[in-house]
Amino acid sequence: MSRSEIAAVNRMFEEAAAKGDLESLASLYTKDAVALPPDGPFVRGRDNIKQMWASIAQQIGLKSVKLETVDLEVAGEMAHEVGEAQLTLGSGTAVVKYVVVWKKADGQWRLHRDIWNTKAT
Amino acid sequence: MSRSEIAAVNRMFEEAAAKGDLESLASLYTKDAVALPPDGPFVRGRDNIKQMWASIAQQIGLKSVKLETVDLEVAGEMAHEVGEAQLTLGSGTAVVKYVVVWKKADGQWRLHRDIWNTKAT
Repeated sequence: MSRSEIAAVNRMFEEAAAKGDLESLASLYTKDAVALPPDGPFVRGRDNIKQMWASIAQQIGLKSVKLETVDLEVAGEMAHEVGEAQLTLGSGTAVVKYVVVWKKADGQWRLHRDIWNTKAT
Repeated sequence: MSRSEIAAVNRMFEEAAAKGDLESLASLYTKDAVALPPDGPFVRGRDNIKQMWASIAQQIGLKSVKLETVDLEVAGEMAHEVGEAQLTLGSGTAVVKYVVVWKKADGQWRLHRDIWNTKAT
């Protein structure tokens, strides 16, 4: 159940990214989420995470993201995922690997910690 | 209790890194741990993680690591930490930010997922 719910949020993430709907994208994070973008600071909270995605999307010309879960362990209201993201950019593609800590907040699975880095080519 | 235990493992991590004791360093990870080094692949299991640290230590001339926990949330036998690591290298220093997912295995807190990237300067 939790697994399919988390997968569904990943599909919502992909959809929001493809539409450039950063409001929806940010709403998939917990209120006190922390994102850790490469070469960036700690980014805390939905508003700052929304700005972070606006900045990243513009910088790399992000067109779409495809998320592939490699490992997912669920323990109660917390879960953690290891995955790989295929990014379609203005020029070409990129692959990153990530860890997301998921938290169930108000009955919904949300990204609580989100960190990624580049994958070996 | 769990918080001080996790802090103690971080001190063991620093000590093992400073000594170049990669056997001890690898033993602080769970058997099925996954490490995600920047510009690298998924690294699974203690043996591969040990080799990863040997390779990284040599590549960057790692002399010591200082770990600073920024956030730590514990839920039962799982925990997740957001932190910052100060690295002393052959030439100068570097700062990375990280997320570690901790798991209690055989009564001991161990690093289960370990991912980091560079911090904005």
